[in-house]
Order: sequence, then structure tokens, then C-alpha cells
Amino acid sequence: MNPAESPLLTDLYQLTMLDAYHARGMEATAVFELFVRKLPPGRNFLVAAGLEQALAYLEQLRFSAGDLEWVQRSGRFSPGFAACLARLRFTGEVHAMREGTVFFPGEPVLRVTAPLPQAQLVETRVINVIHYETLVASKAARCVLAAPGRCLVDFGLRRAHGAEAGMLAARASYIAGFSGTATVLAGREMGIPLFGTMAHSFVQAHDDEAAAFEHFAALHPQGTTLLVDTYDTEAGARKVVALAGRLRERGVRVGGVRLDSGELGALAVSVRRILDEGGLGDTTIFASGNLDEYRLREFTAAGAPIDGYGVGSSLVTSGDAPYLDAVYKLQEYAGRARRKRSTGKATWPGRKQVYRHRDARGRLAHDVVSVEGDEQTGTPLLVPVMRKGRRLHAAESLEAMRERAAAELASLPERLRALEDSAEPYRVEIAPALRKLAAEVDRAGGEIPALLK
Amino acid sequence: MNPAESPLLTDLYQLTMLDAYHARGMEATAVFELFVRKLPPGRNFLVAAGLEQALAYLEQLRFSAGDLEWVQRSGRFSPGFAACLARLRFTGEVHAMREGTVFFPGEPVLRVTAPLPQAQLVETRVINVIHYETLVASKAARCVLAAPGRCLVDFGLRRAHGAEAGMLAARASYIAGFSGTATVLAGREMGIPLFGTMAHSFVQAHDDEAAAFEHFAALHPQGTTLLVDTYDTEAGARKVVALAGRLRERGVRVGGVRLDSGELGALAVSVRRILDEGGLGDTTIFASGNLDEYRLREFTAAGAPIDGYGVGSSLVTSGDAPYLDAVYKLQEYAGRARRKRSTGKATWPGRKQVYRHRDARGRLAHDVVSVEGDEQTGTPLLVPVMRKGRRLHAAESLEAMRERAAAELASLPERLRALEDSAEPYRVEIAPALRKLAAEVDRAGGEIPALLK
Repeated sequence: MNPAESPLLTDLYQLTMLDAYHARGMEATAVFELFVRKLPPGRNFLVAAGLEQALAYLEQLRFSAGDLEWVQRSGRFSPGFAACLARLRFTGEVHAMREGTVFFPGEPVLRVTAPLPQAQLVETRVINVIHYETLVASKAARCVLAAPGRCLVDFGLRRAHGAEAGMLAARASYIAGFSGTATVLAGREMGIPLFGTMAHSFVQAHDDEAAAFEHFAALHPQGTTLLVDTYDTEAGARKVVALAGRLRERGVRVGGVRLDSGELGALAVSVRRILDEGGLGDTTIFASGNLDEYRLREFTAAGAPIDGYGVGSSLVTSGDAPYLDAVYKLQEYAGRARRKRSTGKATWPGRKQVYRHRDARGRLAHDVVSVEGDEQTGTPLLVPVMRKGRRLHAAESLEAMRERAAAELASLPERLRALEDSAEPYRVEIAPALRKLAAEVDRAGGEIPALLK
Repeated sequence: MNPAESPLLTDLYQLTMLDAYHARGMEATAVFELFVRKLPPGRNFLVAAGLEQALAYLEQLRFSAGDLEWVQRSGRFSPGFAACLARLRFTGEVHAMREGTVFFPGEPVLRVTAPLPQAQLVETRVINVIHYETLVASKAARCVLAAPGRCLVDFGLRRAHGAEAGMLAARASYIAGFSGTATVLAGREMGIPLFGTMAHSFVQAHDDEAAAFEHFAALHPQGTTLLVDTYDTEAGARKVVALAGRLRERGVRVGGVRLDSGELGALAVSVRRILDEGGLGDTTIFASGNLDEYRLREFTAAGAPIDGYGVGSSLVTSGDAPYLDAVYKLQEYAGRARRKRSTGKATWPGRKQVYRHRDARGRLAHDVVSVEGDEQTGTPLLVPVMRKGRRLHAAESLEAMRERAAAELASLPERLRALEDSAEPYRVEIAPALRKLAAEVDRAGGEIPALLK
């Protein structure tokens, strides 16, 4: 059973509410928007990802016979509820930002317009995929900015939070500019480039480190990466040099060495010298081991001779900020705008659009959030992606998303590229039309909704 | 496709190494152990979880025709490699700590004994499940200690890292003492008790908050939980009181109210008063919204009249420590102990056992790690769970694991129950026999292994 495909991968209250909606015939059109309330500390922007998984989920949504039997047996719902779920499909519309788009707090990245029960039920899983992929894409983008021009590889599967996280992390980091992943299944299923070296256990299983190197290299004559830190990093590098001549005679090239422990920056310098002096000037140095964007920035600043990095746990868990304040909120029901006013969690009502403005050099200048249909200049970021429950376009290629993300990162103003909070955050304006709608909703008492303009 | 079931959910280097082992006929018995190198800040212990998923994975491990075709097509491996993978099954032994057991850094929680290629291949996924469930069980145990006697519910699915994380978080937190989860599929698949309330969108979709309450409550006459903070928490509570009489006449009971925003501790006091004065003394108060063990401790210390808590993002991501330094290391190959000596990452060699000592009152006193078969007193924590690739016992019930975890938490010395680092960490001794083995391995040069005693 793949939990990702079950409509029961949801919160119990979604079903309880659906039961209540059904009992009252509350099936008018609802509009929900997914947005992030605020940035985690140190973040200046986010990178949207996960739309494809959300759309695939919506398109295949249906209750199986087993699901319906469980609903009936559970005794938690009204008698006719299972029959009502049996007919349930997602028949609504989705507008969304394209994956790889840079966005900011308060901006909807996805809008669902559908009969209330459908739009409500899908909340949990839609947040689940978009939140996680956006989290990882945003973290990965920071690594990319911190190590310009370097080969970055997702090494995180083992400490990702379960199987799907490993797969989605490979995808999200690739969109954001990583060169690839070590996760084989992500290569097979999504065509993400695969990278791999060797483990310490390989060296340990041989009686001699040099024999392990020779054995491994010989199987990969075009060049492989040898792990040199199992016993002593510099000694390991010298063994590689000593071997290289013999291997060359057999037509085998040593592609690179990997450092995975100790003072990586200093070791890279000494290993580079050992390799260069040994005539292995084109053998690359790859580093791994507890890396994150802050360590990468240090290596970049120090000019460390490291050609590539494996980034694992901190990438796939977004270690310093493992979740975002991502929410999916009702903005309109039955043609009337709605607004939640809970302390610290109030929302802007109505269907919204985000309009992006760029400066003369094409760099991001500011965004305006307004009600949909407002006469605004700027480029609207939310585009229709699903109608009547069917995707409007074939799935975009990861390469296209990756190019978009690269262009977006390149067009970030310098102050937002830093790894620390910018003193001047990106400006997101609330348009007068949206303020007016909110005031109307409030004047009407909040719970008695204002008419949409 | 369920990624959790594919043998290709692994790191590329596992396959590359297998190819090399195959080429050299390196198929002697290897012993790998999974352990956590050190505790994250603020942690004094960990709770083992995830064994069942690891064993299920090992038992079903096989390459499908599609997997083999990919291996062949990829051009990355030796010609005979796919045929060799086609025959691969896990035929080894597993020893492990039972789920719900408290353990400490440096102690193996799981030991795999199998032909080298098998034991190597499974590394990534075995760490993936045990790391994540242990992470969440350990976080959940802290919440349980911080809110004794309260009903704790996993609310985290939407911000869990993907689908499987949501399922496994429900399981791991239940083992550690949570009362249940909101994740429907976890209830259906694993029998974990389900809890749910209502969402703000439900209130917002109605034109009137009181009408929403009445509508929802009427469907759940035995008692449901009403969310009272959509507009104004105290006003919401007063509406519940006003409704309660009318509902009672219809045979409908208001079970509880939920607070999800604002100053939860202060609001709980005023809402408790409103409910009590309104004759709803048995209506419970449930709180949610950015909770973690530190907030729970504050409420407990203040005597806040809160009966239960929904804990979400911080639980399922282990927000303050989203990954552990969990590793799976080769300890023995072909009858000889092995040791990695990388800077800061050296391991103790050989097959090990953990012996637990308790004081006269049954509380945890200290552990001793030694080589297996050493004459040690204390209770050995690693027990055989799989032989010849088959589980030795039926899967243990979650209830049994939950009871074990409760007993373990009850037997923790007071200083380890705190949410901050204890000045006196739990004592884990390395037995003389293990030190002797390590010295022998080192004397032999580390890479030339010592004979096992």
C-alpha cells in the first residue's frame, strides 16, 4: 500500500467536516489558498516546488472499496456518508505558481476552487507535498548561492524522514540547482542525474586500503571517486597517487577523491597539493560530512580547492528550519469572501493574485497581492494549471523548472541572496482593492461575509 | 509505485560497491551495527523505534524485472550484475533492541549479520526507517514527560516530510505514549486511536459561528470538540455555553472545545471559567498551535486547565533536532573485526552487546557495551529478531511497545527526564574486552584486522 495514493492519508477532521457538509448540502464552490505566513529566521525568500505531486494526487483522488468499507465500519460517520465518498472525485480548478518560482510570505502559491467538500478534503495532502518540496527547494537554493559553480549532490536519503521524503528531496533540490542525487530510485523514476562514490565499509572490508582503491577504480575505468579518509586522509591521497600510474597503464583514470571527515578545508588544500604533485591535476576533490550552506560559504570564502559537495541531512530535513508556517485557508465560499481573524493568524480574504514587478535590469523589485481581476500591472504569478479536475498541460520537465529556478535566483537582488535576514526584506504590497475587501468583510462582522466585488 | 518497497530506494554507491564485491567474490559474512554517535543538544536519551518497518523491508527485499532492466540499461555496472541482483534476497540475521526501549549514544540498536553484499545494500533504507521513527519517538517521549497525564495527539501530517513520514510519525509517537493521531490512514492501517476536531474553514463556511457549532455537534451526539477561536475565543466559548442547553435537550453533549491561537494558557483559564459557570464542567479544553515539549512544560508548571494537546510540526519533524547522527557501520568482515578511524568518527570494532544495569528500585543505573559473548552481568538489550531472512516472532503489538516505553520512561532517573542536558549524562561503559579488541585491531594497523577473540 502506497500511503501517498490513499484519500485516507488525511486528518480525521477533514472527513468529519465532509460528513457535516454532506448532511447540510453545503457543496457550493469554495476557494482555498495555500501560502506561507512567515519566513523562518535567516531566510529571505522561498522557492515553490511540489505542484506536480499535488496535481497528480488531485487527479487520481478516489476512495477504494476498502477505504469505503473502513469508513462504514468505523461507526464515526452518518449512514449515507460512504456512498457519498464513493462518488467523490476532484472536479475543481487549480491556479498555482510554477515550480522553481521564487516567492514570499503571504503570497498564495496555489489556489483551489472546487465544491467545498473536495476542496476541504485535499487540504492535508496538498500541504504535505508542497510544504516539503518547497522547504527543501528553498534550502537547496541557499546551498547553490553559497557555492557558486560547484557540483552539489543530494546525499540525504538515509536521514530523510521516510521513503517519500528521500524521493521528493532529490526532486526539489534538483529543481533548485543541485547537480543530482545519490538516490537511485529518484534517478530511475524521475531521470535525475545520479552520483555516487564509495563507503568506508568498502575500504574496511578489504585487508588493505590501496587494494580497495585499485579494485574499485578498475571497475570504473572512465573515472570514479575514491574515499580517502577511512584511516588517514593524506596517506589515503598518497596511495591514490601511487596507484594512479599503474591504473593509467591499464586504461583506468582516477576521477576524484572524497573527503568525509576532519578539517575539510585544510585537508582539501593538502590533498590538492598531493594530487597535483603526483601528476593528478585533473583529479577532483569532493567533500561531504555534516555540510550545509554555512559551511559551503566558508569554503567558498576561503577559496578551498573543493570541486563538489555532498549535502545530506541538513538539506533533506532543512535542518535549521525543518518546517514552514504553510497553511491552506478558506478565502471564499458560495460567492462570498471569508476571513479568519484568530489572534496572530488573520488572513486576507477573497481570491487573490500576485503581481510581480522587476527593475530595469530584470531583477525582482516588489510584488503586489490583490484580488483576482484587479487592474494591476506586473506579471501575474498564479496561472491556471487544472480545470474540471484535469491538468491543463503535460507535466513540465524538471529541466524547465531548473532553468526557471536558476533564472529566478539570478534575478534576486543582492541583499536577498545572503544567508542571513536582510535588513530590507522584499516588499510585498497589499493592493487597495484587497484592503477594501477585507474592510468590507470586517464591517459585516467577519462571520457575515461581504460580497465579492 | 511505493518507493518504500523498492530495493532501488538506496544510494548509488551501494550498488556500485555490490558490483565490486560481486566481481571479487567478496561474499563472506559481514556484521554491521546501527547506532547514534551523539545526542542532539538538550536530549538525555533516545527511544528505539522503527524495527518492524526495517524487518518488513528485509523480508520482502527483491529486485523486480523492471528494477533489473534499469540496472542493465543504465550502463553503470558489470555485465553479470543484474543477474546477480536477480538472485539477491536477504538471508541474514538481525539482532535488535525492542521498540520502545530507551537507549544511549554509542549503543548499537540493531545489528545485521549477513553476506557482505546483502548487509551493505540495506544500509540506506534500514537507517532511513529506524532513524526517523527513533527521532520522533524520542521527541514524543519528551512531550509525554512534559505533560504528565494529558491526552497528547499527533496533529503533524500536513507538515510531515511526505506521506510515509506522516504514517511513521503517528506510529512512533503512539509507541512513545501519545494517545493517538489525527492521521486517518494510520488509524486504519495500524489501529492507532484517531482524534479529530474541526477546522476554521468549517466555521468560516457557515454564515454564523454558533450555527456551525450546532451543526457539527448535532452530528456527534456522544460529544465532539468545537473550535472556538476563529473570531474571538472567549466569545466562542460563550456561544458554546449558550448552545449547550438546547443541544442537551436534543440528547447532544459538547465534549470539548479547542483553542488554536492567542495566549493559550491565559485563554484556557478564562474559557474554563466560562464553561464552568455555564454548567459545562465536564467539557474539556484541548489546545493546539505551535506546541512542543517546552510549551507543554510551561502549561504544566502553570497548572493550565488544559486536558489535551495536539502537537504537530515540532513533533513530526523533531523541530529542534530534525536528525540524529545515526550510522550503520561495518564491525566485522570474514571473521575479523574492523574499525574505522576517521577523525572524530572512529568506531568500536566487533559484534557488540549492550548490558543494562538497574538500581535497587529498578531505575536505569548504567549500561556496559562489550563484545558479544563476553561474561557480563546486566540485561542484554539486543535480542535475535530475524534468522535466515525470516522474522523469528510475529510482529509485536503497538500496545506492547507502548507499555515497554512507558515502563522505560518511568524508570529513567530524574536527571534524565529533564528537557535540558543533564550535568551528569547516563553512564555507558566500554567493557575491557571491547577495549582489548580495539587495541588489537589498532596494533595490527587498523586496516589489517585482528582476529576476533
